Amino acid sequence: MARLSLNQKTTDRWSVAEAVAGCVRAGLPSIGLWREPVQAIGVPTAARLVADAGLRVSSLCRGGFLTAADPARRRRALDDNRRAVDEAAELGAACLVMVVGGLPEGSRDLAGARERMAEGIAELAPYAAGRGVRLALEPMHPIFCADRGVLSTLGQALDLAERFPAEQVGVVVDTFHVWWDPDVLGQIRRARGRVASFQVCDWITPLPPDALLSRGMMGDGHIDFPLLRRAVEQAGYAGDIEVEIFNAEVWAADPDAVVATLARRYVTHVLPD
Amino acid sequence: MARLSLNQKTTDRWSVAEAVAGCVRAGLPSIGLWREPVQAIGVPTAARLVADAGLRVSSLCRGGFLTAADPARRRRALDDNRRAVDEAAELGAACLVMVVGGLPEGSRDLAGARERMAEGIAELAPYAAGRGVRLALEPMHPIFCADRGVLSTLGQALDLAERFPAEQVGVVVDTFHVWWDPDVLGQIRRARGRVASFQVCDWITPLPPDALLSRGMMGDGHIDFPLLRRAVEQAGYAGDIEVEIFNAEVWAADPDAVVATLARRYVTHVLPD
Repeated sequence: MARLSLNQKTTDRWSVAEAVAGCVRAGLPSIGLWREPVQAIGVPTAARLVADAGLRVSSLCRGGFLTAADPARRRRALDDNRRAVDEAAELGAACLVMVVGGLPEGSRDLAGARERMAEGIAELAPYAAGRGVRLALEPMHPIFCADRGVLSTLGQALDLAERFPAEQVGVVVDTFHVWWDPDVLGQIRRARGRVASFQVCDWITPLPPDALLSRGMMGDGHIDFPLLRRAVEQAGYAGDIEVEIFNAEVWAADPDAVVATLARRYVTHVLPD
Repeated sequence: MARLSLNQKTTDRWSVAEAVAGCVRAGLPSIGLWREPVQAIGVPTAARLVADAGLRVSSLCRGGFLTAADPARRRRALDDNRRAVDEAAELGAACLVMVVGGLPEGSRDLAGARERMAEGIAELAPYAAGRGVRLALEPMHPIFCADRGVLSTLGQALDLAERFPAEQVGVVVDTFHVWWDPDVLGQIRRARGRVASFQVCDWITPLPPDALLSRGMMGDGHIDFPLLRRAVEQAGYAGDIEVEIFNAEVWAADPDAVVATLARRYVTHVLPD
């Protein structure tokens, strides 16, 4: 379990302190943090909790939401992203995950939203570099294209990331988002040196009614995890493997039991060659 | 409305006879048929109903489901597809829509399923050509990759279709399935001479709870229809534009009212330049 990280969204009802303690109890060496629970206790307190526990911060979720056309909203989004960069720096996070945002209310201009997203990344990348924070562009499953992430494929994310130095802008490979892509293995090869985060959870059927909570525990669905893990490793990624599951049933369960299950499934379903 | 076609799944409770009559009442010149309601009255009767009404058959839905690994299942699937080809020929359908199938029960071998799908198409294409039927490969939204269609992008569909003469194997451009694709316009250009069917319905949010019934009426969602219609026309497609909506609310409504709405929305949301 030397590379296993708990994304704290998987145990949604735990505070940062509880999630940190849960990781320690289960022997996990790393945690993926979210901004809202971090802000609830203050960034310095969160940073101290994590450091005192000896955990790594595999990622901070999340920056992004850069698709607004309205200038005032756009400015607010950029300001908020700069704050997210500052927080990631203070937490010593390996990267800041960027969920780029969907179509603005009432808009059908997908190409325009994608352009504004790219412009936003271009504006933020130097700021992040100045603070030693790596932006991690997260291609999202096309199910979220309209309302959450207009970055839809790993290829598209790399087209954008490659405009910047690899240490400034990388990509997230999240199995849930990319497993279906006929070109996923080729794009992971292309991502050599750019994989900033590797996240795992499963695609389950029937898909749960709420698309946002449709992720499954590894082994409960259709994804070949060893295939994708080997691919990211062959592309040079040796960082943490973060388990991030949004799922009403998982959230309703006892968080310690969830961590125990994911640690077991990590061994049986992610690690095997 | 010279090119507007009612896919009969949009008015799911109508029989073939009722759907044909509904098209005539509304002034639609074309209909997309499904095998099950056609079989319910027999193919010759369905063919006569459509011919007597002077309608075109823009497509027959559907062949496919070619991903089984088990030899007996595979043989049954191929036999059933040959019957579907025969039915499409007898109905004079412009194409047979191929929904290629998902992962077999319990399998995580997506690459294997895709290979078997391609082998199945290779086996069926000459048979279809011998009967004057064009196979129309339908790339499906990645939301359906696990359980319905491992053909996930227009590019992937064209990679396969291009192994065959264009009059034997074409592709379906269904706005719901392809609208999110960052490369959709480039792939539609590449599809010149290969677009066998153009289907429209909208991507709505929040996504309805049942993924299979998540399609919306044009104008209710996020898709830029004129953009995609112009692209398929510039790629040489001058055939019918089929409205295919799987949606519990649409199915619950009076079918004549649904046809009236879709005809109006076609004019206001699909046709404008």
